[in-house]
Amino acid sequence: MMKVKIYVTLRESVLDPQGTAVKSSLHAMNYHEVQDVRIGKYLEVTIAPSDRPIDEVVREMCEKLLANTVIEDFEYEVEEAITQ
Amino acid sequence: MMKVKIYVTLRESVLDPQGTAVKSSLHAMNYHEVQDVRIGKYLEVTIAPSDRPIDEVVREMCEKLLANTVIEDFEYEVEEAITQ
Repeated sequence: MMKVKIYVTLRESVLDPQGTAVKSSLHAMNYHEVQDVRIGKYLEVTIAPSDRPIDEVVREMCEKLLANTVIEDFEYEVEEAITQ
Repeated sequence: MMKVKIYVTLRESVLDPQGTAVKSSLHAMNYHEVQDVRIGKYLEVTIAPSDRPIDEVVREMCEKLLANTVIEDFEYEVEEAITQ
């Protein structure tokens, strides 16, 4: 079993209204040192071994379902082999 | 300027209906090797230097606003010093 950590972020050029709202809240709470906030998704996916390479499987899942590649980028790390 | 990466995840004991829905979708797309999916938030926060230690500021922001510590855990990494 492999644990894969996937980070999905909005592309640089895409506005992030959720991040802007959080930044405003932090400023209202007197955290004026905060310059910018960008919000994305973080997924932990546990994958059993199959006959296909894990990189191929993860990349395909991200492109088809987990990220909208028009406006989002994704990165991932294959974290650990969990012994059964 | 420091870039801080913050990961907010649901605690182990808390049900994750969004993760369960994504797992079902992946199974419906024939990714039967997927055993589990947990979904969290990923934030990139840019912070200017202040007179308080960055760890103290980040921890406080997470506890007060970014994570609901009753049901969520958070981790963070102070990533890099961005030269101005």
